Amino acid sequence: MAEVKLHGGWASPFSNKVVWALKLKGIPYEYIEEDLYNKSASLLKYNPVHKMIPVFVHGEKPVCESMVILEYIEEMWPHNPWLMPSDPYDRAQARFWIKFAEDKGVAVWKMFFSTGQDLENAMKAALELLQTVEKHGLGEKKFFNKQWLQMLGPISQYWLSRPSIWSHCRKVPLIEENLPNQHEMVIAFKRRRETLVTSA
Amino acid sequence: MAEVKLHGGWASPFSNKVVWALKLKGIPYEYIEEDLYNKSASLLKYNPVHKMIPVFVHGEKPVCESMVILEYIEEMWPHNPWLMPSDPYDRAQARFWIKFAEDKGVAVWKMFFSTGQDLENAMKAALELLQTVEKHGLGEKKFFNKQWLQMLGPISQYWLSRPSIWSHCRKVPLIEENLPNQHEMVIAFKRRRETLVTSA
Repeated sequence: MAEVKLHGGWASPFSNKVVWALKLKGIPYEYIEEDLYNKSASLLKYNPVHKMIPVFVHGEKPVCESMVILEYIEEMWPHNPWLMPSDPYDRAQARFWIKFAEDKGVAVWKMFFSTGQDLENAMKAALELLQTVEKHGLGEKKFFNKQWLQMLGPISQYWLSRPSIWSHCRKVPLIEENLPNQHEMVIAFKRRRETLVTSA
Repeated sequence: MAEVKLHGGWASPFSNKVVWALKLKGIPYEYIEEDLYNKSASLLKYNPVHKMIPVFVHGEKPVCESMVILEYIEEMWPHNPWLMPSDPYDRAQARFWIKFAEDKGVAVWKMFFSTGQDLENAMKAALELLQTVEKHGLGEKKFFNKQWLQMLGPISQYWLSRPSIWSHCRKVPLIEENLPNQHEMVIAFKRRRETLVTSA
Protein backbone atom coordinates (compact mmCIF):
# COMPACT_ATOMS: atom_id res chain seq x y z
CA MET A 1 0.00 0.00 0.00
CA ALA A 2 1.43 3.36 -1.01
CA GLU A 3 2.26 5.91 1.64
CA VAL A 4 -0.54 8.25 2.69
CA LYS A 5 -0.02 11.85 3.84
CA LEU A 6 -2.47 14.55 4.80
CA HIS A 7 -1.70 18.26 4.75
CA GLY A 8 -4.30 19.81 7.06
CA GLY A 9 -5.22 22.44 9.62
CA TRP A 10 -6.32 21.41 13.09
CA ALA A 11 -9.33 23.77 13.26
CA SER A 12 -10.57 23.20 9.71
CA PRO A 13 -13.74 21.14 9.33
CA PHE A 14 -12.67 20.35 5.77
CA SER A 15 -9.44 18.88 7.08
CA ASN A 16 -11.11 17.11 10.04
CA LYS A 17 -13.62 15.36 7.76
CA VAL A 18 -10.64 13.65 6.09
CA VAL A 19 -9.03 12.80 9.45
CA TRP A 20 -12.29 11.15 10.55
CA ALA A 21 -12.52 9.13 7.33
CA LEU A 22 -8.91 7.92 7.68
CA LYS A 23 -9.42 6.95 11.33
CA LEU A 24 -12.66 5.15 10.51
CA LYS A 25 -10.98 3.18 7.76
CA GLY A 26 -7.95 2.50 9.94
CA ILE A 27 -5.59 3.85 7.28
CA PRO A 28 -2.14 4.78 8.66
CA TYR A 29 -1.05 8.23 7.53
CA GLU A 30 1.45 11.00 8.14
CA TYR A 31 -0.18 14.27 9.17
CA ILE A 32 1.40 17.60 8.25
CA GLU A 33 -0.09 20.60 10.06
CA GLU A 34 0.04 23.60 7.73
CA ASP A 35 0.54 27.18 8.89
CA LEU A 36 -2.12 28.88 6.75
CA TYR A 37 -0.20 32.14 6.85
CA ASN A 38 3.00 30.46 5.71
CA LYS A 39 2.11 27.43 3.60
CA SER A 40 4.71 24.75 2.92
CA ALA A 41 6.37 24.32 -0.47
CA SER A 42 4.83 20.84 -0.65
CA LEU A 43 1.31 22.20 -0.23
CA LEU A 44 1.85 24.74 -3.02
CA LYS A 45 3.34 22.04 -5.23
CA TYR A 46 0.51 19.57 -4.60
CA ASN A 47 -2.37 22.07 -4.87
CA PRO A 48 -1.18 24.76 -7.30
CA VAL A 49 -4.75 25.65 -8.32
CA HIS A 50 -6.30 26.47 -4.92
CA LYS A 51 -3.21 26.46 -2.61
CA MET A 52 -5.51 25.27 0.18
CA ILE A 53 -5.79 22.48 2.70
CA PRO A 54 -6.73 19.69 2.89
CA VAL A 55 -4.40 17.96 0.45
CA PHE A 56 -4.34 14.17 0.49
CA VAL A 57 -1.21 12.56 -0.94
CA HIS A 58 -1.27 8.90 -1.92
CA GLY A 59 2.11 7.61 -3.05
CA GLU A 60 3.19 11.12 -4.11
CA LYS A 61 -0.05 11.66 -6.10
CA PRO A 62 -2.12 14.53 -4.69
CA VAL A 63 -5.89 14.69 -4.36
CA CYS A 64 -7.45 18.06 -3.49
CA GLU A 65 -10.93 19.28 -2.39
CA SER A 66 -12.29 17.62 0.75
CA MET A 67 -15.31 15.98 -0.91
CA VAL A 68 -13.19 14.66 -3.79
CA ILE A 69 -10.74 13.27 -1.22
CA LEU A 70 -13.56 11.54 0.69
CA GLU A 71 -14.98 9.92 -2.45
CA TYR A 72 -11.45 8.80 -3.39
CA ILE A 73 -10.87 7.26 0.05
CA GLU A 74 -14.23 5.49 -0.12
CA GLU A 75 -13.40 4.05 -3.53
CA MET A 76 -9.80 3.03 -2.73
CA TRP A 77 -10.60 1.58 0.72
CA PRO A 78 -14.16 0.29 0.39
CA HIS A 79 -14.26 -1.42 3.80
CA ASN A 80 -16.23 0.32 6.57
CA PRO A 81 -18.45 2.14 4.07
CA TRP A 82 -19.32 5.43 5.62
CA LEU A 83 -19.32 8.32 3.24
CA MET A 84 -22.27 7.44 1.04
CA PRO A 85 -25.52 5.49 1.36
CA SER A 86 -25.37 2.16 -0.48
CA ASP A 87 -28.60 2.73 -2.49
CA PRO A 88 -27.91 4.69 -5.73
CA TYR A 89 -30.98 6.91 -5.29
CA ASP A 90 -30.11 7.74 -1.67
CA ARG A 91 -26.55 8.39 -2.83
CA ALA A 92 -27.85 10.87 -5.43
CA GLN A 93 -29.82 12.66 -2.70
CA ALA A 94 -26.72 12.75 -0.48
CA ARG A 95 -24.70 14.26 -3.35
CA PHE A 96 -27.45 16.83 -3.93
CA TRP A 97 -27.28 18.03 -0.32
CA ILE A 98 -23.49 17.94 -0.20
CA LYS A 99 -23.46 20.18 -3.28
CA PHE A 100 -26.08 22.40 -1.69
CA ALA A 101 -23.93 22.80 1.43
CA GLU A 102 -20.79 23.45 -0.62
CA ASP A 103 -22.48 25.99 -2.90
CA LYS A 104 -24.54 27.82 -0.31
CA GLY A 105 -22.39 27.31 2.77
CA VAL A 106 -20.52 30.52 1.94
CA ALA A 107 -23.47 32.32 3.57
CA VAL A 108 -22.49 30.71 6.85
CA TRP A 109 -18.88 31.79 6.44
CA LYS A 110 -19.95 35.35 5.62
CA MET A 111 -21.89 35.47 8.87
CA PHE A 112 -18.72 34.52 10.60
CA PHE A 113 -16.53 37.23 9.18
CA SER A 114 -18.73 40.27 8.68
CA THR A 115 -20.14 43.10 10.79
CA GLY A 116 -23.09 45.54 10.84
CA GLN A 117 -25.57 45.32 7.97
CA ASP A 118 -23.45 42.70 6.20
CA LEU A 119 -23.72 40.52 9.28
CA GLU A 120 -27.50 41.01 9.42
CA ASN A 121 -27.82 40.02 5.76
CA ALA A 122 -25.51 37.05 6.19
CA MET A 123 -27.46 35.81 9.22
CA LYS A 124 -30.73 36.07 7.30
CA ALA A 125 -29.24 34.14 4.36
CA ALA A 126 -27.76 31.48 6.64
CA LEU A 127 -31.04 31.01 8.47
CA GLU A 128 -32.95 30.59 5.18
CA LEU A 129 -30.34 28.04 4.20
CA LEU A 130 -30.79 26.03 7.36
CA GLN A 131 -34.57 26.22 7.06
CA THR A 132 -34.37 24.89 3.48
CA VAL A 133 -32.26 21.97 4.65
CA GLU A 134 -34.64 21.28 7.51
CA LYS A 135 -37.73 21.51 5.30
CA HIS A 136 -36.57 19.52 2.28
CA GLY A 137 -33.53 17.54 3.40
CA LEU A 138 -34.41 16.39 6.88
CA GLY A 139 -37.93 15.09 6.39
CA GLU A 140 -38.99 11.63 7.45
CA LYS A 141 -36.75 10.25 4.74
CA LYS A 142 -33.55 11.63 6.26
CA PHE A 143 -31.91 11.53 2.86
CA PHE A 144 -28.39 12.22 3.90
CA ASN A 145 -26.07 10.70 6.40
CA LYS A 146 -26.64 12.30 9.77
CA GLN A 147 -22.92 12.47 10.34
CA TRP A 148 -22.68 14.96 7.52
CA LEU A 149 -24.88 17.48 9.23
CA GLN A 150 -22.91 17.03 12.40
CA MET A 151 -19.71 17.65 10.52
CA LEU A 152 -20.99 20.78 8.88
CA GLY A 153 -21.93 21.98 12.35
CA PRO A 154 -18.66 23.11 13.85
CA ILE A 155 -17.91 25.59 11.06
CA SER A 156 -20.38 28.23 12.08
CA GLN A 157 -20.54 30.67 14.93
CA TYR A 158 -24.26 29.93 15.10
CA TRP A 159 -23.53 26.29 15.64
CA LEU A 160 -20.42 26.84 17.72
CA SER A 161 -22.65 28.56 20.24
CA ARG A 162 -25.09 25.63 20.36
CA PRO A 163 -23.99 22.96 22.82
CA SER A 164 -26.51 20.55 21.30
CA ILE A 165 -24.43 20.26 18.12
CA TRP A 166 -21.35 19.40 20.11
CA SER A 167 -23.23 16.78 22.07
CA HIS A 168 -24.54 15.33 18.77
CA CYS A 169 -20.97 15.03 17.48
CA ARG A 170 -20.04 13.31 20.72
CA LYS A 171 -22.60 10.59 20.04
CA VAL A 172 -20.28 9.26 17.33
CA PRO A 173 -17.29 7.98 19.33
CA LEU A 174 -14.85 8.21 16.44
CA ILE A 175 -15.72 11.85 15.88
CA GLU A 176 -15.75 12.66 19.59
CA GLU A 177 -12.23 11.31 19.98
CA ASN A 178 -11.01 13.39 17.06
CA LEU A 179 -12.85 16.67 17.51
CA PRO A 180 -10.69 19.74 17.84
CA ASN A 181 -10.81 21.29 21.30
CA GLN A 182 -13.95 23.43 21.32
CA HIS A 183 -12.45 26.16 23.50
CA GLU A 184 -9.27 26.46 21.41
CA MET A 185 -11.38 26.46 18.25
CA VAL A 186 -13.52 29.36 19.44
CA ILE A 187 -10.36 31.31 20.32
CA ALA A 188 -8.78 30.55 16.93
CA PHE A 189 -11.90 31.53 14.99
CA LYS A 190 -12.34 34.72 17.01
CA ARG A 191 -8.74 35.68 16.26
CA ARG A 192 -9.26 34.93 12.55
CA ARG A 193 -12.46 36.99 12.58
CA GLU A 194 -10.70 39.97 14.21
CA THR A 195 -7.91 39.85 11.62
CA LEU A 196 -10.39 39.70 8.74
CA VAL A 197 -12.75 42.34 10.10
CA THR A 198 -9.83 44.70 10.85
CA SER A 199 -8.27 44.26 7.42
CA ALA A 200 -11.62 44.63 5.58
CA MET B 1 -37.40 -0.70 -15.65
CA ALA B 2 -39.16 2.31 -14.14
CA GLU B 3 -40.26 5.14 -16.38
CA VAL B 4 -37.72 7.89 -17.06
CA LYS B 5 -38.61 11.55 -17.64
CA LEU B 6 -36.46 14.60 -18.17
CA HIS B 7 -37.61 18.16 -17.57
CA GLY B 8 -35.21 20.29 -19.59
CA GLY B 9 -34.57 23.36 -21.71
CA TRP B 10 -33.42 23.01 -25.30
CA ALA B 11 -30.67 25.66 -25.10
CA SER B 12 -29.33 24.69 -21.67
CA PRO B 13 -25.96 22.92 -21.60
CA PHE B 14 -26.90 21.48 -18.20
CA SER B 15 -29.98 19.91 -19.74
CA ASN B 16 -28.18 18.78 -22.90
CA LYS B 17 -25.49 16.98 -20.91
CA VAL B 18 -28.25 14.74 -19.55
CA VAL B 19 -29.80 14.24 -23.00
CA TRP B 20 -26.42 13.14 -24.35
CA ALA B 21 -25.94 10.67 -21.46
CA LEU B 22 -29.42 9.17 -22.01
CA LYS B 23 -28.85 8.82 -25.75
CA LEU B 24 -25.43 7.27 -25.21
CA LYS B 25 -26.86 4.72 -22.79
CA GLY B 26 -29.85 4.09 -25.07
CA ILE B 27 -32.31 4.76 -22.24
CA PRO B 28 -35.85 5.53 -23.48
CA TYR B 29 -37.27 8.66 -21.82
CA GLU B 30 -40.04 11.20 -22.02
CA TYR B 31 -38.75 14.75 -22.54
CA ILE B 32 -40.65 17.73 -21.14
CA GLU B 33 -39.49 21.11 -22.46
CA GLU B 34 -39.91 23.69 -19.69
CA ASP B 35 -40.77 27.34 -20.30
CA LEU B 36 -38.27 28.94 -17.92
CA TYR B 37 -40.51 32.00 -17.53
CA ASN B 38 -43.52 29.82 -16.65
CA LYS B 39 -42.32 26.64 -15.04
CA SER B 40 -44.60 23.61 -14.79
CA ALA B 41 -46.18 22.51 -11.51
CA SER B 42 -44.29 19.21 -11.86
CA LEU B 43 -40.94 20.98 -12.05
CA LEU B 44 -41.69 23.00 -8.91
CA LYS B 45 -42.88 19.85 -7.14
CA TYR B 46 -39.83 17.83 -8.14
CA ASN B 47 -37.22 20.51 -7.47
CA PRO B 48 -38.62 22.69 -4.66
CA VAL B 49 -35.15 23.76 -3.51
CA HIS B 50 -33.74 25.24 -6.74
CA LYS B 51 -36.83 25.26 -9.04
CA MET B 52 -34.45 24.74 -11.94
CA ILE B 53 -33.92 22.40 -14.88
CA PRO B 54 -32.73 19.78 -15.49
CA VAL B 55 -34.83 17.48 -13.35
CA PHE B 56 -34.51 13.75 -13.97
CA VAL B 57 -37.45 11.64 -12.81
CA HIS B 58 -37.00 7.90 -12.40
CA GLY B 59 -40.22 6.14 -11.49
CA GLU B 60 -41.64 9.31 -9.91
CA LYS B 61 -38.47 9.86 -7.85
CA PRO B 62 -36.71 13.11 -8.80
CA VAL B 63 -32.96 13.69 -9.07
CA CYS B 64 -31.76 17.30 -9.42
CA GLU B 65 -28.45 19.01 -10.30
CA SER B 66 -26.95 18.00 -13.66
CA MET B 67 -23.78 16.45 -12.25
CA VAL B 68 -25.72 14.48 -9.63
CA ILE B 69 -28.04 13.25 -12.39
CA LEU B 70 -25.07 12.14 -14.51
CA GLU B 71 -23.47 10.21 -11.65
CA TYR B 72 -26.87 8.60 -10.91
CA ILE B 73 -27.32 7.56 -14.55
CA GLU B 74 -23.79 6.13 -14.63
CA GLU B 75 -24.44 4.10 -11.49
CA MET B 76 -27.92 2.85 -12.47
CA TRP B 77 -27.04 2.04 -16.08
CA PRO B 78 -23.34 1.09 -15.93
CA HIS B 79 -23.10 -0.07 -19.57
CA ASN B 80 -21.35 2.24 -22.04
CA PRO B 81 -19.31 3.90 -19.25
CA TRP B 82 -18.77 7.47 -20.28
CA LEU B 83 -19.02 9.93 -17.48
CA MET B 84 -16.01 9.01 -15.42
CA PRO B 85 -12.57 7.46 -16.00
CA SER B 86 -12.35 3.89 -14.69
CA ASP B 87 -9.19 4.47 -12.60
CA PRO B 88 -10.04 5.84 -9.10
CA TYR B 89 -7.21 8.39 -9.17
CA ASP B 90 -8.17 9.67 -12.63
CA ARG B 91 -11.79 9.78 -11.40
CA ALA B 92 -10.71 11.95 -8.45
CA GLN B 93 -8.96 14.32 -10.87
CA ALA B 94 -12.07 14.44 -13.07
CA ARG B 95 -14.21 15.30 -10.02
CA PHE B 96 -11.71 18.01 -9.04
CA TRP B 97 -12.03 19.71 -12.44
CA ILE B 98 -15.80 19.27 -12.59
CA LYS B 99 -16.04 20.98 -9.20
CA PHE B 100 -13.65 23.68 -10.43
CA ALA B 101 -15.85 24.32 -13.47
CA GLU B 102 -19.02 24.36 -11.36
CA ASP B 103 -17.57 26.69 -8.71
CA LYS B 104 -15.71 29.07 -11.00
CA GLY B 105 -17.85 28.80 -14.12
CA VAL B 106 -20.01 31.65 -12.85
CA ALA B 107 -17.27 33.96 -14.16
CA VAL B 108 -18.11 32.77 -17.66
CA TRP B 109 -21.82 33.42 -17.12
CA LYS B 110 -21.08 36.91 -15.77
CA MET B 111 -19.21 37.70 -18.95
CA PHE B 112 -22.32 36.72 -20.81
CA PHE B 113 -24.73 38.97 -18.99
CA SER B 114 -22.79 42.11 -18.03
CA THR B 115 -21.70 45.33 -19.68
CA GLY B 116 -19.02 48.03 -19.34
CA GLN B 117 -16.47 47.61 -16.56
CA ASP B 118 -18.31 44.55 -15.20
CA LEU B 119 -17.86 42.90 -18.59
CA GLU B 120 -14.16 43.79 -18.63
CA ASN B 121 -13.71 42.28 -15.16
CA ALA B 122 -15.71 39.19 -16.06
CA MET B 123 -13.68 38.63 -19.23
CA LYS B 124 -10.45 38.94 -17.26
CA ALA B 125 -11.70 36.43 -14.66
CA ALA B 126 -12.94 34.00 -17.32
CA LEU B 127 -9.64 34.15 -19.18
CA GLU B 128 -7.67 33.44 -15.97
CA LEU B 129 -10.01 30.52 -15.39
CA LEU B 130 -9.39 29.05 -18.82
CA GLN B 131 -5.65 29.57 -18.46
CA THR B 132 -5.69 27.73 -15.12
CA VAL B 133 -7.51 24.81 -16.73
CA GLU B 134 -5.09 24.79 -19.64
CA LYS B 135 -2.03 25.00 -17.38
CA HIS B 136 -2.96 22.48 -14.70
CA GLY B 137 -5.79 20.39 -16.13
CA LEU B 138 -4.84 19.88 -19.75
CA GLY B 139 -1.21 18.90 -19.42
CA GLU B 140 0.22 15.80 -20.99
CA LYS B 141 -1.88 13.76 -18.60
CA LYS B 142 -5.21 15.04 -19.90
CA PHE B 143 -6.80 14.27 -16.57
CA PHE B 144 -10.38 14.78 -17.51
CA ASN B 145 -12.57 13.43 -20.21
CA LYS B 146 -12.19 15.60 -23.29
CA GLN B 147 -15.93 15.47 -23.86
CA TRP B 148 -16.39 17.50 -20.69
CA LEU B 149 -14.49 20.45 -22.01
CA GLN B 150 -16.44 20.29 -25.23
CA MET B 151 -19.66 20.29 -23.28
CA LEU B 152 -18.66 23.26 -21.18
CA GLY B 153 -17.92 25.03 -24.44
CA PRO B 154 -21.32 26.01 -25.73
CA ILE B 155 -22.29 27.96 -22.60
CA SER B 156 -20.14 30.98 -23.21
CA GLN B 157 -20.30 33.85 -25.64
CA TYR B 158 -16.55 33.55 -25.96
CA TRP B 159 -16.90 29.99 -27.07
CA LEU B 160 -20.07 30.53 -29.05
CA SER B 161 -18.10 32.84 -31.28
CA ARG B 162 -15.36 30.27 -31.85
CA PRO B 163 -16.19 27.87 -34.69
CA SER B 164 -13.39 25.55 -33.53
CA ILE B 165 -15.37 24.57 -30.42
CA TRP B 166 -18.37 23.66 -32.51
CA SER B 167 -16.25 21.60 -34.83
CA HIS B 168 -14.73 19.83 -31.79
CA CYS B 169 -18.24 18.94 -30.58
CA ARG B 170 -19.04 17.62 -34.01
CA LYS B 171 -16.18 15.14 -33.75
CA VAL B 172 -18.30 13.17 -31.27
CA PRO B 173 -21.18 11.89 -33.46
CA LEU B 174 -23.59 11.41 -30.57
CA ILE B 175 -23.09 15.02 -29.46
CA GLU B 176 -23.20 16.36 -33.01
CA GLU B 177 -26.57 14.72 -33.62
CA ASN B 178 -27.96 16.19 -30.43
CA LEU B 179 -26.48 19.68 -30.38
CA PRO B 180 -28.97 22.53 -30.24
CA ASN B 181 -29.03 24.61 -33.41
CA GLN B 182 -26.13 27.05 -33.10
CA HIS B 183 -27.93 29.91 -34.84
CA GLU B 184 -31.09 29.56 -32.73
CA MET B 185 -28.96 29.31 -29.60
CA VAL B 186 -27.13 32.55 -30.35
CA ILE B 187 -30.49 34.27 -30.91
CA ALA B 188 -31.94 32.86 -27.67
CA PHE B 189 -28.92 33.82 -25.61
CA LYS B 190 -28.81 37.32 -27.12
CA ARG B 191 -32.48 37.79 -26.22
CA ARG B 192 -31.82 36.52 -22.69
CA ARG B 193 -28.86 38.88 -22.40
CA GLU B 194 -30.91 41.87 -23.55
CA THR B 195 -33.62 41.09 -21.00
CA LEU B 196 -31.10 40.75 -18.19
CA VAL B 197 -29.03 43.79 -19.12
CA THR B 198 -32.16 45.93 -19.51
CA SER B 199 -33.63 44.82 -16.19
CA ALA B 200 -30.31 45.25 -14.31
